[in-house]
Order: sequence, then C-alpha cells, then structure tokens
Amino acid sequence: MEMKKQLLAEFIGTYFLVFAGTGAMVIDEITHNITHVGIAMTFGLVVTALIYTFGHISGAHFNPAVTIAFWVRKDISLRSSLLYILTQCVAAIAASSTLYWLFGNIAKLGATLPSSRERQSFVLEFILTFVLMIVILGSATHGKAVKSFAGIAIGAAVGVMAMFAGPICGASMNPARSLGPALVSGATEHLWLYLAAPVLGAIAATLVYQILHD
Amino acid sequence: MEMKKQLLAEFIGTYFLVFAGTGAMVIDEITHNITHVGIAMTFGLVVTALIYTFGHISGAHFNPAVTIAFWVRKDISLRSSLLYILTQCVAAIAASSTLYWLFGNIAKLGATLPSSRERQSFVLEFILTFVLMIVILGSATHGKAVKSFAGIAIGAAVGVMAMFAGPICGASMNPARSLGPALVSGATEHLWLYLAAPVLGAIAATLVYQILHD
Amino acid sequence: MEMKKQLLAEFIGTYFLVFAGTGAMVIDEITHNITHVGIAMTFGLVVTALIYTFGHISGAHFNPAVTIAFWVRKDISLRSSLLYILTQCVAAIAASSTLYWLFGNIAKLGATLPSSRERQSFVLEFILTFVLMIVILGSATHGKAVKSFAGIAIGAAVGVMAMFAGPICGASMNPARSLGPALVSGATEHLWLYLAAPVLGAIAATLVYQILHD
Amino acid sequence: MEMKKQLLAEFIGTYFLVFAGTGAMVIDEITHNITHVGIAMTFGLVVTALIYTFGHISGAHFNPAVTIAFWVRKDISLRSSLLYILTQCVAAIAASSTLYWLFGNIAKLGATLPSSRERQSFVLEFILTFVLMIVILGSATHGKAVKSFAGIAIGAAVGVMAMFAGPICGASMNPARSLGPALVSGATEHLWLYLAAPVLGAIAATLVYQILHD
Repeated sequence: MEMKKQLLAEFIGTYFLVFAGTGAMVIDEITHNITHVGIAMTFGLVVTALIYTFGHISGAHFNPAVTIAFWVRKDISLRSSLLYILTQCVAAIAASSTLYWLFGNIAKLGATLPSSRERQSFVLEFILTFVLMIVILGSATHGKAVKSFAGIAIGAAVGVMAMFAGPICGASMNPARSLGPALVSGATEHLWLYLAAPVLGAIAATLVYQILHD
Repeated sequence: MEMKKQLLAEFIGTYFLVFAGTGAMVIDEITHNITHVGIAMTFGLVVTALIYTFGHISGAHFNPAVTIAFWVRKDISLRSSLLYILTQCVAAIAASSTLYWLFGNIAKLGATLPSSRERQSFVLEFILTFVLMIVILGSATHGKAVKSFAGIAIGAAVGVMAMFAGPICGASMNPARSLGPALVSGATEHLWLYLAAPVLGAIAATLVYQILHD
Repeated sequence: MEMKKQLLAEFIGTYFLVFAGTGAMVIDEITHNITHVGIAMTFGLVVTALIYTFGHISGAHFNPAVTIAFWVRKDISLRSSLLYILTQCVAAIAASSTLYWLFGNIAKLGATLPSSRERQSFVLEFILTFVLMIVILGSATHGKAVKSFAGIAIGAAVGVMAMFAGPICGASMNPARSLGPALVSGATEHLWLYLAAPVLGAIAATLVYQILHD
Repeated sequence: MEMKKQLLAEFIGTYFLVFAGTGAMVIDEITHNITHVGIAMTFGLVVTALIYTFGHISGAHFNPAVTIAFWVRKDISLRSSLLYILTQCVAAIAASSTLYWLFGNIAKLGATLPSSRERQSFVLEFILTFVLMIVILGSATHGKAVKSFAGIAIGAAVGVMAMFAGPICGASMNPARSLGPALVSGATEHLWLYLAAPVLGAIAATLVYQILHD
C-alpha cells in the first residue's frame, strides 16, 4: 500500500530532521563546540540527505507548511495532506521526546523563540518560508528544472535560512519542527507565530509562483 | 508573457540574494555568532539555491555586471538587459529597505567598503568578477560543459570569493548588491568602485573567453 | 579478478576515511585550529569523495556495519562480506598505525569514547547508524532513486551525524573506524559499544526498509 | 588551435587556484577572520568551481604532479605535459606576484612549510597526493564512474586534505601551488619537499590504480 510507505518516509524524515537539527542546539548547549555555523550546516545537510533518501517515496515534505502549500496547489489530496501533517507532528514530538529522554530539558530542546520583537520574527519567518517554497517549486516541480538537483538547492536554501536568520527568529519555516520542542519542553508561548507565519508564507509562494510556472 | 516571468524571477532572486547575504552581515553585527565564515557560506549557498530555482526561467543573472556581459556577447537584447538591470537594482533596494525596516541602520546594511586603499579593492573586484564571469561562461554556456552542475560551480565560486576576499573589498562582484545597502544606509562614498570594477571585470572576461569558447 | 579490485578499493577507502577523519582529531589536538566543525566536515567530505571514487568498484562500504546489513539483505555473499570486513578492519588499523608513527599516541588517535553515560551513547550510535543505513538504502539502492546523487546524500548524512552527535558519542557508526584507534592507542574500554550499536542499528534499518522498498 | 585553449584554461585555473587559496592565507594574516576552516573551504570550493569551468577544455589539471601522472599513464603527450607544467608554474608565480603587489610580503604569501619535522610532512604530502590522484582517476577516468560528479569528488578531497593536514604540512599536493609563493616570497628552504613528494605520490597512485582500472 503506497500511503503506508509515504507516511513511514515522512515519519523517519521528519523525526530525523528534528532530531539532528534541534539535537545540534541541545548538544551545543552542553559541549559548546558545534557553534551556530555548525548548527546551520546540520539543518541544511540533513535536508539534502533526506530528500535524496525519501523524495521518490513521499515527496520529502517533512513540513506541514509545505504539505498545505501543495494541497492549495491541488498536488495532494485533502486526506493525504491531513495524514502527512499528522505524521509530521507525531514524528517531531517523538524526536523531541527522544532528546528529552537522552539529555533532559536543555536549551528548551531547540524550541524556536523570537530573539526580540514578535513582529520582527513573524515577518522573517514569512519571508523565509515564502522563499523556501519558491525554491521547492522552482527546483523540484517546474517543467524545465533539472529536478535531480532539487535536493541540493533545497538543502542549500534551508542552510542559508538557518545561517543568516537563525539567530533572530530561529529559522523554523516548519510548524512541526517548532511544535515538537515547544510541546515537550513547555516553551509554547510563541508557538502560534511558528505555526502561522510559515503556513502563510508557503501559501503566498504558491500564489506568486502561478505567474512563474511553465 | 515570457518577459514578465523573467523579470519576476530576477526580482525575487536578486531580492533574496541581497536579503540573505547582507542580512547575514547585519545580523552578525547584532548577535556575533554567524562569523565571517558563515557570511561567506550564506553568499555561496544562496546563489546555488537560486540558480536551480530560476536558471531555467530567467538565466539567474541577479547581477547587472553579468547581464551587461551577456549583452556584450549578444546573448541578450539591449531592451531585455535594461529591464533586467532595472529590476535587479529595484530588488536590491527593496531588500536593503526590508532589512532597514526590520533592524534599523546597522552595519551600514552590509554595504561593501574597501578595508584599506581603494585601488587595492578595485583590483580585487576586477579580478573576482573576471573569474566569476569565466566560471559562468565555462560552466553554464560552453558547448561541452555539464551545464546542470553550473549552479554548484557558480555558487562555489561566489562562496570562495566572499570567503577569501570579503574581508578586504567586500567581494561584491555585483553593482546591484552594492547599490541597495549603499543607497538605503547612505554609505555611498565608495559606491562608484563597486559599480565600475565588476562591470569592467565581467566585460574583460567575455573578451578573453572568446579564445576559450567552443 | 573482480574480488581483488573490490578489496583494494575497500582497503584504500577505509584507510583514508580513518586516516583523514581521526587524523583531523589528532592534528586538532596539536594545532587547535581545525575545530569540531572542521572535523565534522572532514568526515562528511571524505565520504563523498570516496563514494564517487570507489562506489562503482566495491560499492564503497568502508564499514563492517554496512557490509553486514547488505549481507542480511542478501545483496552480498557471506564469503565476500567476511573478506570485506577483514579488509576494512586491517585498513583501519593501518591508518591508526600511520597516525601513531607520524604523531605519537595523541588524542587516543581519535578513538570514539562516550562523553557521559554509556547507555546514552549506545542509543545515539544505534539511531545514527539506523538513519545512515536508511539513507544508504534510500539514495543508492531504491528503484526510483537518482542514484548518482547517493555520494552527496551519504556524505551529507555522515557530516551531519559527526557535527551534531560527535561531541557526545563520537558519531562512529562504523566498527572499523572505532577499532583502529582503540587497538593502536589502547583505549579499548568502550570498544564493545561501537562494535555492537552500529551493527544493530544497520540491521534494524534493513528490516524497516523492507516496508519502504519498491 | 586546441593547445592554445588548453594552456589558457590551465593558466587561468592555476592562477586563480593559487590566488584564492594562498590569498585566503595572506588575508587571514591581516584580518584574522577567515580562520583555518575558511582557508580549507576556499581550497576545496575553488577546485570544484574550476573543474566545472575548465574540465572539458584542458582536463583541469592545474597541478604538475597530476600532469606528470597522466603522462606516466600515457594519457597526455610529453610535449603537451611540458607545456602544461610550464604554464602552471608561470600562472602560480603570477598569482603570488599579484598578491605581493596587493598586500606585500605577508605570511610568506601562503608558502607551504612543514610545521615540524621535514620527514613527517614528506610522508603526509606523499599520502595526500596519492589519495588525491586515486580520487581523480577513480571519479573522472574509470569506465563506470559517474564522471559528471568528479568536480564535487575532487573538490571535496582537496578540501578534506587542506582541512585535516594543512596545519601540519600545508597540504600542497601541487608543486606549482608551492613554487609560486616560495619563489616570490623567498621562502624556498623546504621547496624541494613540495616538488618531490607530490610527484612521487601521484606516480605511485597511477601504478596502484592499474589494478583497479576497468
């Protein structure tokens, strides 16, 4: 059954994306040698690895905002998208729970938090997810794209976002990636921001992309 | 209409190239954890991501010096190249304006400035843009090139330039990338250098490349 | 004779994987400028380079856990897998011996050691190798995978593991990589962990992957 | 005329390889923000960029040791190889001269020097160049190699060598890269090592590779 494969791929992919990325933040709090540059590289490289592993099985979303955007584009059915999103959220919570079990409640388990004003981080998350979704659509779905390179393009984009914007807004771009650490560590006060802004940014990208699409 | 797509691609691409690259400089001034290495990686990786996103739509110039060089080679019409350049400049100014709105006038918004003598930076910018344009022509247009790898080659080249020469001259290679921060932050005193040297370097590369071209 | 080529490829590959990766740890102890980020990049990049060099000759295992997992899947015969594993172990010991000869018994020659509780590192090594093996199977053997990108995916995965988990458990994922430094430096007290956990993780991955495989 | 194109490609490629790589060392001495990790990344990324730019024109040697090894394999004529080597040496001297003109005699212009005993660095340079040449042969010439990825594999290998071994021996692997800075800065006392060891390592690799070649 095809859906079972897809959900297993989304589960393992989202689990490990959150485990590695937020794990880097937790472990850096303990050992202080990963540094922000190493954390950003972790987020970018894990996305590239996972896309080449699962892209041909589930589409390698690992992100409810991406799944919703594909649903808006009618690329995925409502039922499938709900199952994808549920799987992604469960996987993220499982990843944060594993980190909690291994290391305790350190560094809020990598929860995304605005470093300053909420509005600033909201705008940033909107822009980051808008561009990430444009990169996904442009490199992986456009008729003339060299689609085999999408894993490099999207991993590079995620790495860039984490590198330059991470210190301000956390560079989530992904409601599941923010949900897991927030729920398990209890740092839920700004969670709404990381649920809303990425979804709005990804949907806006699909609308703008209609002009670009071939 | 094809031109509308191309200009939208150039707008989003140049906007985000400037937003991410100079954003890294602005945010590093605030948080001090991106470091020069992280800033250089941001410039390189964002170029790779954007080429695989927009290369098949607009050619992924994002740079007036590159557009002028392609016009010298008669690869693009005068009208198209003027529209491209105008779009790139407006996008860069929009990116710097967004950073100004979000963070204030910090780190001169990532404006490129010579760290020492102007002549030194002029020579560097000329050499950097010369080589960048040779890399573009050799990897993306040469008849025998494995063109699908051009996004990696050009992103690697930009990353290298930013890494080794950034501390001296800023490693602009791109009049639009220098124009945006200079105009919005008011640091226009050395702007002429970053308009002239990249254009001359890119044109020189097209002339030398005639010997290499197949 | 095909097997001779394969074993020579496994020998050179494993030798250099251990020489470069643990060499980075040894030399960083002497010069303090490679840093953890540079060590993690060394492990990831050397894997990418070696897969494109030897993948088409021996399959580029360089790792007894991977070889055992392929044997469980019946992708390699018992005799071949035993010869592979013997070659990998000899190569790793040779690499550690070369480092010992060049630098003396510094930094325990890069031996993997748990930074805290053994159980914590055991769980981590199990998860890391599980995901690494899923990445290998998904990117290099799945019927619909763009297999030519497997070298990038697997190198990125190894780099990620080393980056985020290296400070806690050493991110071995490879019994041979742990055996060489442990035997030559004499730091064998936790060696059992790095023999057992990676093998179990890799075997678990092959079982789970049966659901995903096309 | 084909040879003219090839020599121009070798000139620009070797010039920029030395300019960027040793330039990173010179500029880091002035600004202290590139760090060893950034220097190693510069060497690796510039090789990847240049291979995709010039590989289809000249083979992208940029290195007398590589050219000699291909001559030993009878892949290139004696006359061509002598012209290649002369061009590479002139280009490296030109690159070091440009750096001298721009920055003065700083950091011995990036000359490669043993950090400790000469024998230690000799052995390292031999091993590094041996493996580099095996990577070149395995990824770019082997009958079953996915040759389009050779630029990534070889750039990754050079980056790895620079990262882990650079602090000890300089990780030259390239007589031209060592000749330029040594001659122009006057630091010629250990130059013989960097001429001899890489050539011997590359030749040894061609001999061993005969067993592997398909």
